Amino acid sequence: MKRLALFAVSLLTASLTFAQQALWGGGPLVSPEVHDDNTVTFRIKAPKAVRVQVTGDFLPQTKVETPRGTWDMPGTAELKEGRNGVWEYTTPQPLASELYSYTFVVDGQRMPDPANVYMVRDVATVSNIFLIKGGQADLYAVNSVPHGTLSRVWYDSPTLGMQRRMTVYTPAGYETGNKRYPVLYLLHGMGGDEEAWVTLGRAAQILDNLIAQGKAVPMIVVMTNGNASQEAAPGESAQGFCPVSSNLPKTMEGSFETAFPDVVKFVDKTYRTRKDKHSRAIAGLSMGGFHSLHISKQYPDMFDYVGLFSAAILPGKDTLSDIYRDSDAKLDTQFARKPALYWIGIGKTDFLYKANADFRQKLDSKGYAYTYMETEGGHIWRNWRIYLSEFATKLFR
Amino acid sequence: MKRLALFAVSLLTASLTFAQQALWGGGPLVSPEVHDDNTVTFRIKAPKAVRVQVTGDFLPQTKVETPRGTWDMPGTAELKEGRNGVWEYTTPQPLASELYSYTFVVDGQRMPDPANVYMVRDVATVSNIFLIKGGQADLYAVNSVPHGTLSRVWYDSPTLGMQRRMTVYTPAGYETGNKRYPVLYLLHGMGGDEEAWVTLGRAAQILDNLIAQGKAVPMIVVMTNGNASQEAAPGESAQGFCPVSSNLPKTMEGSFETAFPDVVKFVDKTYRTRKDKHSRAIAGLSMGGFHSLHISKQYPDMFDYVGLFSAAILPGKDTLSDIYRDSDAKLDTQFARKPALYWIGIGKTDFLYKANADFRQKLDSKGYAYTYMETEGGHIWRNWRIYLSEFATKLFR
Repeated sequence: MKRLALFAVSLLTASLTFAQQALWGGGPLVSPEVHDDNTVTFRIKAPKAVRVQVTGDFLPQTKVETPRGTWDMPGTAELKEGRNGVWEYTTPQPLASELYSYTFVVDGQRMPDPANVYMVRDVATVSNIFLIKGGQADLYAVNSVPHGTLSRVWYDSPTLGMQRRMTVYTPAGYETGNKRYPVLYLLHGMGGDEEAWVTLGRAAQILDNLIAQGKAVPMIVVMTNGNASQEAAPGESAQGFCPVSSNLPKTMEGSFETAFPDVVKFVDKTYRTRKDKHSRAIAGLSMGGFHSLHISKQYPDMFDYVGLFSAAILPGKDTLSDIYRDSDAKLDTQFARKPALYWIGIGKTDFLYKANADFRQKLDSKGYAYTYMETEGGHIWRNWRIYLSEFATKLFR
Repeated sequence: MKRLALFAVSLLTASLTFAQQALWGGGPLVSPEVHDDNTVTFRIKAPKAVRVQVTGDFLPQTKVETPRGTWDMPGTAELKEGRNGVWEYTTPQPLASELYSYTFVVDGQRMPDPANVYMVRDVATVSNIFLIKGGQADLYAVNSVPHGTLSRVWYDSPTLGMQRRMTVYTPAGYETGNKRYPVLYLLHGMGGDEEAWVTLGRAAQILDNLIAQGKAVPMIVVMTNGNASQEAAPGESAQGFCPVSSNLPKTMEGSFETAFPDVVKFVDKTYRTRKDKHSRAIAGLSMGGFHSLHISKQYPDMFDYVGLFSAAILPGKDTLSDIYRDSDAKLDTQFARKPALYWIGIGKTDFLYKANADFRQKLDSKGYAYTYMETEGGHIWRNWRIYLSEFATKLFR
């Protein structure tokens, strides 16, 4: 019997190996390959393809003319066909340290790199990712440091009348200690959900690394779902594996802001939080910056730290929610109580740059203090990761 | 300024929509489309392709001859090209209720369905998934029931000398209550990791649904990483986005079993567990069944419930660990203490069927009680989800 079982175990290994080889159609292709000098080679086997391109944020953006104006789109590069139908492209220059995303375009059809299992979803698009260490992206890598816990938690929102899902980061040592922690509420943009900040935003890695380096204080980070019509991220609610839309109802019309106290109440009841204003921060990107702006002025005693990352500023014209009424008076009240930090970050080519400049002018005209960071580039995750990396170091000091 | 900001907000929406359209190369293609009668249509745009197939576990398996014997491989079906370069295939028959996985094969190259963002990784292979409700798969769907929390937690393993990652399911009500819960330790197979049972195995959905129906008692489920050389799943450790291998060192040579008390100690210290043997179960699939077998007999006072799902039985010939010494005597000790449940499940065509039959014969010859479930099919996730759905209902009664 022993020999038979041994055979079975070797089959077990063989079967997996075989299955992989069979499924992958030959020997393993390495893609992307990051070379020692930080140039990168992309490879894909496509023997019958006519044209193979790679597109991603590691390439210079290109201007595309549209009826609505000129848009910055990710660049593309052409792969060349070599032996055995394997197409290849190597970046002419080393890439700077960053977390990059890309996909192939085979005969006009976008497709993920079949050799790279690391993928992230951005709204309805799935891309592969890779990371170049040795600089900014060291903050985005999993390093040999103590790691916090990442939880998907359901909470009750009586205001919205539903159970909703959030992602919660508790810092290393939370489970085994009894300390109380301050809380950063971190909000996503339009089309995103409670997954966005931990997948595209690398929030857990950024916090793990900053805390380990002593550059941020240990904190809880609560990442909500800002689409008030949605229980949870696509695939994670009773709606099932439905198509993904960035055009959801109830996103920037006051519902989420109105229901936000439900979130804070649940978090303060469930986790060992410090419950005072000085121990609460709120920040978000794009729509989440808009939410952060309006939530923090609606509840002026709730948050002492506010971060607007490439934020939208004003609601749509037909938006009737009380949340957006008397905005100037509410801002006056908020700033009269002197927030510990009001932080604004935006990219130079962001389509919301002008709206943010106008908003800063308003703050300036009233003499309200804020911290401002301007970066290269536009409305992109690269900037939002940088803003979080910067903002988190300034909290709860 | 208001009009400008309004414009910015409409741009915000437009930009996302535009980006998607640009990236997707036209109007949205629905794939897979599950029709009312549970037939399913798959679609992909590939105007220059010569041959497009779909492969997946919804198709009948095919026999493939290899030097090592005859293997059951997933079947393939041919798509037909229609208008605008869109290829299509509709299943001739309705599909039974199940969670299915598939990919396309375009001119011999496996690729995920670009229209379907729902994907799972199985070792080094990424596939799309879809779900047919109305039967067994209702247990695998997210339904409108109270949801437990799913956490990725790092723990210290002094025995292995590293921080390691585990996935922990705590049942609905855990955060807001003060009850203590029994614990199921649920182990993955070769090439898997601490993600496998919650992605491919749908463990959180199965537990949520069984508990909501009153068919399982509320329990904590701890899903470890059974590769003792690995801190965490690929991409989640300091190794970075490394290639994925099913051929890892230190998987079935005693290290994981030896270090298992570290896991139980951490869990009992960190969570509100019931700490007695009657409140602990251990189960696993394939290599995880092997681990469950050897851990439960090595520590005969630790687990009252044992589940072997398509389990490997005996270690390799050159495996020297004490864990595998005196196996018969250890089994005698374990069964003398009369486990509340010793459960064995296997598929009729599983390559480990004979090894399991031999093992059952040994148990029979000694008069040791166990529960046995035999299903159709082989060494596949479909069976392991069924076994968990069955096993979980029998625990902690």
